[in-house]
Amino acid sequence: MIARFSRPELEHIWSDANRYATWLEVELAACAAMEEEGTVPRGTAAAVRALAVGRLEPARIDAVERVTRHDVIAFLTHVEELAGEPARWLHLGMTSSDVLDSALALQTAAALDAILAGIAGLRAACARRAEEHRRTPMVGRSHGIHAEPTSAGLTFLRWYAELGRAAERVARARDGIRVGKLAGAVGTYAHVSPAVEARAFARLGLAAESVATQIVGRDRHAEVLGALALLGTAIEQIALGVRHWQRTEVGEAQEAFGKGQKGSSAMPHKKNPILSENLTGLARLLRSYAGAGLEDVALWHERDISHSSVERVVLPDATILADFMLARATTIVADLVVDKARMRENLELTRGLLHSEAILLALVRAGLPRQRAYELVQKSALAAHEGRGLFRELLGADAEIAERLTPAELDAGFSLEHHLRHVDAIYARVLGTTPGATA
Amino acid sequence: MIARFSRPELEHIWSDANRYATWLEVELAACAAMEEEGTVPRGTAAAVRALAVGRLEPARIDAVERVTRHDVIAFLTHVEELAGEPARWLHLGMTSSDVLDSALALQTAAALDAILAGIAGLRAACARRAEEHRRTPMVGRSHGIHAEPTSAGLTFLRWYAELGRAAERVARARDGIRVGKLAGAVGTYAHVSPAVEARAFARLGLAAESVATQIVGRDRHAEVLGALALLGTAIEQIALGVRHWQRTEVGEAQEAFGKGQKGSSAMPHKKNPILSENLTGLARLLRSYAGAGLEDVALWHERDISHSSVERVVLPDATILADFMLARATTIVADLVVDKARMRENLELTRGLLHSEAILLALVRAGLPRQRAYELVQKSALAAHEGRGLFRELLGADAEIAERLTPAELDAGFSLEHHLRHVDAIYARVLGTTPGATA
Amino acid sequence: MIARFSRPELEHIWSDANRYATWLEVELAACAAMEEEGTVPRGTAAAVRALAVGRLEPARIDAVERVTRHDVIAFLTHVEELAGEPARWLHLGMTSSDVLDSALALQTAAALDAILAGIAGLRAACARRAEEHRRTPMVGRSHGIHAEPTSAGLTFLRWYAELGRAAERVARARDGIRVGKLAGAVGTYAHVSPAVEARAFARLGLAAESVATQIVGRDRHAEVLGALALLGTAIEQIALGVRHWQRTEVGEAQEAFGKGQKGSSAMPHKKNPILSENLTGLARLLRSYAGAGLEDVALWHERDISHSSVERVVLPDATILADFMLARATTIVADLVVDKARMRENLELTRGLLHSEAILLALVRAGLPRQRAYELVQKSALAAHEGRGLFRELLGADAEIAERLTPAELDAGFSLEHHLRHVDAIYARVLGTTPGATA
Amino acid sequence: MIARFSRPELEHIWSDANRYATWLEVELAACAAMEEEGTVPRGTAAAVRALAVGRLEPARIDAVERVTRHDVIAFLTHVEELAGEPARWLHLGMTSSDVLDSALALQTAAALDAILAGIAGLRAACARRAEEHRRTPMVGRSHGIHAEPTSAGLTFLRWYAELGRAAERVARARDGIRVGKLAGAVGTYAHVSPAVEARAFARLGLAAESVATQIVGRDRHAEVLGALALLGTAIEQIALGVRHWQRTEVGEAQEAFGKGQKGSSAMPHKKNPILSENLTGLARLLRSYAGAGLEDVALWHERDISHSSVERVVLPDATILADFMLARATTIVADLVVDKARMRENLELTRGLLHSEAILLALVRAGLPRQRAYELVQKSALAAHEGRGLFRELLGADAEIAERLTPAELDAGFSLEHHLRHVDAIYARVLGTTPGATA
Repeated sequence: MIARFSRPELEHIWSDANRYATWLEVELAACAAMEEEGTVPRGTAAAVRALAVGRLEPARIDAVERVTRHDVIAFLTHVEELAGEPARWLHLGMTSSDVLDSALALQTAAALDAILAGIAGLRAACARRAEEHRRTPMVGRSHGIHAEPTSAGLTFLRWYAELGRAAERVARARDGIRVGKLAGAVGTYAHVSPAVEARAFARLGLAAESVATQIVGRDRHAEVLGALALLGTAIEQIALGVRHWQRTEVGEAQEAFGKGQKGSSAMPHKKNPILSENLTGLARLLRSYAGAGLEDVALWHERDISHSSVERVVLPDATILADFMLARATTIVADLVVDKARMRENLELTRGLLHSEAILLALVRAGLPRQRAYELVQKSALAAHEGRGLFRELLGADAEIAERLTPAELDAGFSLEHHLRHVDAIYARVLGTTPGATA
Repeated sequence: MIARFSRPELEHIWSDANRYATWLEVELAACAAMEEEGTVPRGTAAAVRALAVGRLEPARIDAVERVTRHDVIAFLTHVEELAGEPARWLHLGMTSSDVLDSALALQTAAALDAILAGIAGLRAACARRAEEHRRTPMVGRSHGIHAEPTSAGLTFLRWYAELGRAAERVARARDGIRVGKLAGAVGTYAHVSPAVEARAFARLGLAAESVATQIVGRDRHAEVLGALALLGTAIEQIALGVRHWQRTEVGEAQEAFGKGQKGSSAMPHKKNPILSENLTGLARLLRSYAGAGLEDVALWHERDISHSSVERVVLPDATILADFMLARATTIVADLVVDKARMRENLELTRGLLHSEAILLALVRAGLPRQRAYELVQKSALAAHEGRGLFRELLGADAEIAERLTPAELDAGFSLEHHLRHVDAIYARVLGTTPGATA
Repeated sequence: MIARFSRPELEHIWSDANRYATWLEVELAACAAMEEEGTVPRGTAAAVRALAVGRLEPARIDAVERVTRHDVIAFLTHVEELAGEPARWLHLGMTSSDVLDSALALQTAAALDAILAGIAGLRAACARRAEEHRRTPMVGRSHGIHAEPTSAGLTFLRWYAELGRAAERVARARDGIRVGKLAGAVGTYAHVSPAVEARAFARLGLAAESVATQIVGRDRHAEVLGALALLGTAIEQIALGVRHWQRTEVGEAQEAFGKGQKGSSAMPHKKNPILSENLTGLARLLRSYAGAGLEDVALWHERDISHSSVERVVLPDATILADFMLARATTIVADLVVDKARMRENLELTRGLLHSEAILLALVRAGLPRQRAYELVQKSALAAHEGRGLFRELLGADAEIAERLTPAELDAGFSLEHHLRHVDAIYARVLGTTPGATA
Repeated sequence: MIARFSRPELEHIWSDANRYATWLEVELAACAAMEEEGTVPRGTAAAVRALAVGRLEPARIDAVERVTRHDVIAFLTHVEELAGEPARWLHLGMTSSDVLDSALALQTAAALDAILAGIAGLRAACARRAEEHRRTPMVGRSHGIHAEPTSAGLTFLRWYAELGRAAERVARARDGIRVGKLAGAVGTYAHVSPAVEARAFARLGLAAESVATQIVGRDRHAEVLGALALLGTAIEQIALGVRHWQRTEVGEAQEAFGKGQKGSSAMPHKKNPILSENLTGLARLLRSYAGAGLEDVALWHERDISHSSVERVVLPDATILADFMLARATTIVADLVVDKARMRENLELTRGLLHSEAILLALVRAGLPRQRAYELVQKSALAAHEGRGLFRELLGADAEIAERLTPAELDAGFSLEHHLRHVDAIYARVLGTTPGATA
């Protein structure tokens, strides 16, 4: 992933240095397990650890690989250069994929752990803003059209809840990917026993693939990419919300404008929601990576290696991007400038039409058939919409309505507070039972 | 979905008749809940049920919709035609999406239940074949190249395990989609209380969306489509395996040939793996539907309806197709003609090269540095590969090898049984602890 | 494709009846070519034509297929039932795919022809609206933020131009798909000569695949689906434009509201851009189908049939949908209610800030360094944006600006007409040189 | 894109240094055009060129961008640092996207030019191998099953032809992307005239967008990514072909094995088609990028910038990858080790069944109804397939066949040469009329 969209922790996880270091940890865990089983001399792993851990030179490994065209052999050659004789006990009875897949599991799980922390941070920001705007009236819109009043806080609360579902999916994918194998060339434990695998994985914090081929099942990796794509949609939802709020005609919220930031090379007054637009695009990338992941699952016989080139690119790219997006989204949400006054103004834009359903229901409860009530309300609503009067007054002037509803009953239908009366109940089921508490 | 790839149960779930019937159940559950709350006269739901359930005419509803261009209004109009006065109490305070989304949840969950049953059936077939071929020797292949011996049963067992993971994802997606909302136009319960929603959903077996907008979160539907795409890859893996087994040069297994079936209009002898090829293509469709689902999640403000046209097509298409694929895959697996003799023959194709790693390891254990052992084994292996002798004999003729291994030790490296010694352990962790038992 | 999104012409093209009729035309064209070559008795094709064309019964063919599991054999069996002895000369030396692929080419090309006509219709509607609003001032927006004035007509003109590019791609894909093959089981013309193919295709209006396998190259079909996906984005662009125009706070245009149409079951006043939202979703489907098409291209050896199940679903679905979308988009554009007054009002929303760049440039031209000019303009702009005065007045009160620009020069920077002075030039290069003419 | 899959020329095109250099060329071309128009002092562009071209420091620009959060402003600031006073005339009346989009067009077109050269190289390799194996008999396979004999050269020739279609699409996309705009903030030429744009683009080799918004239409970029995805499928087809040829049981061709290359860390004899498997995966990446491109087309009003983050990643990644894939595929094809003897052996595997259609046709031509002939041939074919005799002998022993065909006529049906008699005609239409010539 390009530097612009990368952060250090994730870059480190996917660096050559960390990849080789993780390979070495897998080899050492396997070696230690074999020592316990008695197939390798006691002390081998410790001896290699002392001489090789922290001293691997990626450039040297790459140079060897250019000759052998085989990365694991190049790696082992280099370890032998560093650690000498004991190193020949490494990798005994193992196949390259035993190392590669087990290490990839560790790297991917580490990346997902960082992402889960990022989600938690973004959720915390959403919860704070949700509390802040628990009772901030805002017009609710469906189809881009004003519908009924709502609370601005509910939007933040919804993001919090959606991100919670996204986190569950990422956590499950992380559990699913934390699976390695030391089962040999075709998964039969031909030269390494299941017991060695079990011992080694206890050290590494991995589970063993239940039925491995040469590799671990690629549905696990596809699930990771799918979970990240869905996480991307949750962030995209936030970004889209901010972009709509910030558009000139709406103006209900806007991204904080950095000191020294310039909005446009030509139009100095412009404050554009560029962070949110940026995230909107990046969500598309996460979707596209998920598509590649789904093509990697079905492989030939006991494995073909077509998945590998995809994973070399897509697992780093998708996790690095997701991490970056979470950080950026957290900034956007935490610093978002909400304009409560503008929200109030916008509530008045349709001059009462927002309350049409309340009137409709009052008429039905007063005994009018629904279809007739609908027609009556629609008549006044369209007239008001076309500027032929205020909705409240047009309703009051309708004789058929006047038969059913008193002026006071009509007024009651126009109450704003009415719409926020269940907000606390919604908050309670998401954040916990006590108003104000966040979970 | 076209008739060729549809089965009756799923077609029924997505039929107009069932959709409208499900809408009516949602309306009646809401109505009954309102009766209990006292906002609707007692007996209303029962009265409407008596006159409308089982009598809905989809064609009539469609005719009304052509005028109103609104499906739920058309539906309610028709229900009022059938049930008269009491029907005007239906939908009171509700918005169309309260009905649509809650009903869609019920339909989708029903479709996923059928799919879960289909997975169970396919897994049972895989388990049976796995038991049957627990100890059938077969060459394991990586990169399409013979690698080491394995058991044919392990392939079936792997499919069983992969399908188990697919089933877990589908089951979670089903739990995630079994969520409705009766929260009104923008999710504030403006005209229907959370209590009514809770009562109604207790009847319907739905959970309530934690923070609804006008609709339920679309990440739930995207997760369904993603889980089906991943299920598709598990089926694709089976199909790809059969296609490879059946190719002329391999011939280790083939799809059962139906009575009267014709393989080719031009080549009467041909038996083509057309069912498996067909499934390979259909898995691509499931992938593509998942992509559309991911674009549906981020919507404008409290909802835009762009997701709806996608769902009208893709939720039926994806679930119908998955159901069809499972049935077809079950037939393929259950009836697959496995040629154990051909498997044995193929094991001999490389005249012993399969055992190269065993020799390599014996040399290392006998004290040779790994890289040197590798070179020695590679030398004889390439010679054998190029037809310059049998691998066993070339090894025996190598002076450097003879220094380390006796002829008896060399022979031990060529044992086939050696490779199957951990098969029972693998079966035990997948199917249960007793050999022969399936879970 | 579901009936809701299908129109009769395209449904007919993809009907069983038309498919079988097209197969018969391919068989008859090949037969007639063989007659001319002398390998089939003169008059055979005519005899079969007389007895079979117009009499094929799809249900009968399907019944035979259920036994043979082979559609072309079932079809030939049925033709023999209808036409008797002469029919045995049909298909002589041909393979099923000779018929299937050549017929599929004809069906797909017919579907694309209909789509090209649909594009032409939509472009005509765009051109009319472009002319109508050639000089209708509207605020131009980037990032959803008001930028500079533009003409509303330019939006329609842009749609016209984009659709022109989409049409070129569809036309090229149509030319690319109008390719069949009568080259036998592996493309070698083993039993039918290239000359017969050439004669037959001259009758059918097809080109011959340059190097066929058992089938025609599937890159052709993928290109079709890709061109349709790109057409979908052009329609999506229109739909997105309308949705933005129609949102309550913008209100510059809206979809025409049908007589009897109901906007919302709960909110009678609402006019929602549901047609455009619908098209937005359908564009996602076209994208997803293109993804499946790309997976169909690389096949095993001289063909595997995995592409077939995809094509059975996706070629009808994508073309039917594209045709439907074009018709719907044409209605939207043709009937769109444009509110010129509201466009004027919105131009005033930012109280002059739209003209910031003109002032910036005037300052630069008056000799101020660009960065300094930018800072000066930004200062007044942000002050105006925050409501601390009108932009024009704040600029006028700035001493440093006053040094460079006279009040008259400042006023000139606020001219609306200035922005439309090149509109005719843009129109001329798209629609032709004479203002008012459309191409 | 990671270094492993990148080559220097493409890396340079997308480097920061080249991007900024290209921006500067666009600014200078615009500046020179304004000089000619008289709005900028004569000699400005030359003065800036002398001081800034070749001296841009990307790190300095990036540092400024971290403050301004605006890349073009940072760039202009840096140019002014280098070139002083004349530089303030740059960018006059222009908007950032005038520079960005015009430069992106130049970079993308350069990348596509390199790719077109790569396709030409790969096609040349295919043509050479096609000539070499014009008459090398090989079994043709459909569904993975032996069908009829063909020539190995036809496979190379088909790749050549498919790549030709891919090249046409890339060339068209290159023409489509070679389009810039100097039309200002909303495409109205508010501050720069169409004439300046025309003069500047004549220098740069760009066409002007017909109806620009703030940017050039993104269908152009999506078409580029779509063309690359289709190019990817052509390469994938080659890779898949090699992988099938190389599998142990087929063995008809294999990737050349580099000196020092190691096939497997565990199995020294293995030669795996890893380059081809690698390309198979990379083709998936190209597909996935195309999906992201299609989501970038429909934007808000006169532009939103969501496409930008996608393009920053995907345009470099997709073009760099395509370039790499072409180079790798060229190596594979040029060096592929074809085993003609093994091809001959495999032709014999089905002991004559390949000729079943020839016999079927002979029987039909001898007057047997097709369905009856099919049944007779199928009977002997299945018997032979099941090892109950040789196909030729079983046919000879069939009384009903003996009534129609003499032994000599039966023998004629088993001729191998027969199948290659139209090969020259196919070559002629692809490579030119004279056998041996390549186009």
